[in-house]
Amino acid sequence: MNEEIVLGSQECVRSLAYVGDALYVIGGKWKLRVIIALREGNKRFNEIQRAVEGISARVLSNELKELEMNGFVKRIVHTKAPVVVEYQVTSYADTLKDVLHALSDWGEMHRNKIRREW
Amino acid sequence: MNEEIVLGSQECVRSLAYVGDALYVIGGKWKLRVIIALREGNKRFNEIQRAVEGISARVLSNELKELEMNGFVKRIVHTKAPVVVEYQVTSYADTLKDVLHALSDWGEMHRNKIRREW
Repeated sequence: MNEEIVLGSQECVRSLAYVGDALYVIGGKWKLRVIIALREGNKRFNEIQRAVEGISARVLSNELKELEMNGFVKRIVHTKAPVVVEYQVTSYADTLKDVLHALSDWGEMHRNKIRREW
Repeated sequence: MNEEIVLGSQECVRSLAYVGDALYVIGGKWKLRVIIALREGNKRFNEIQRAVEGISARVLSNELKELEMNGFVKRIVHTKAPVVVEYQVTSYADTLKDVLHALSDWGEMHRNKIRREW
């Protein structure tokens, strides 16, 4: 039984570390929502802000910078007048597909559970 | 092509809402880490704090309250002296298995990618 606990513990520590890594990069309230909004298609700053309900311009600006830094989002500047800046998800953001599906499925299940309880 | 965009957009809105629901409940820096630590076995407050590196007592106390409120964690009081309070994950926390696996897999992949780049 002790051995089982020790194995569980090692597995737990590894899992904790990886989930910690993941949450460090994509955790928080907004990042995944910004990525989902951009998966639909390139968007300008204001368009993202409309798609991601409740995000302030200041927070969105920070989130976009971090997403760019971590290689999930690319900032594209169309230099022909009028200058247009839009944001695009990179192919690296596609690696988050399973995470997004799992979260979306769980969110749907949880919403239905809450509805049944009320 | 317009139709495709509209369909993508509806799907995006639904997905955004569900992921938003999920992140509302389990988002943030700590909640999933606390759940992972408790999946290994019941723990007392101090044991959780040691397992989840970097969390302060005040934040952990708040996180545990919210996790209890949302049905992920149960507070067990052993009334025989010395009184021991420990925390246990509920079976509802098991519904997060796929989310945790997806996050852990992605975190592992991302860590390896970062390592290769450095």
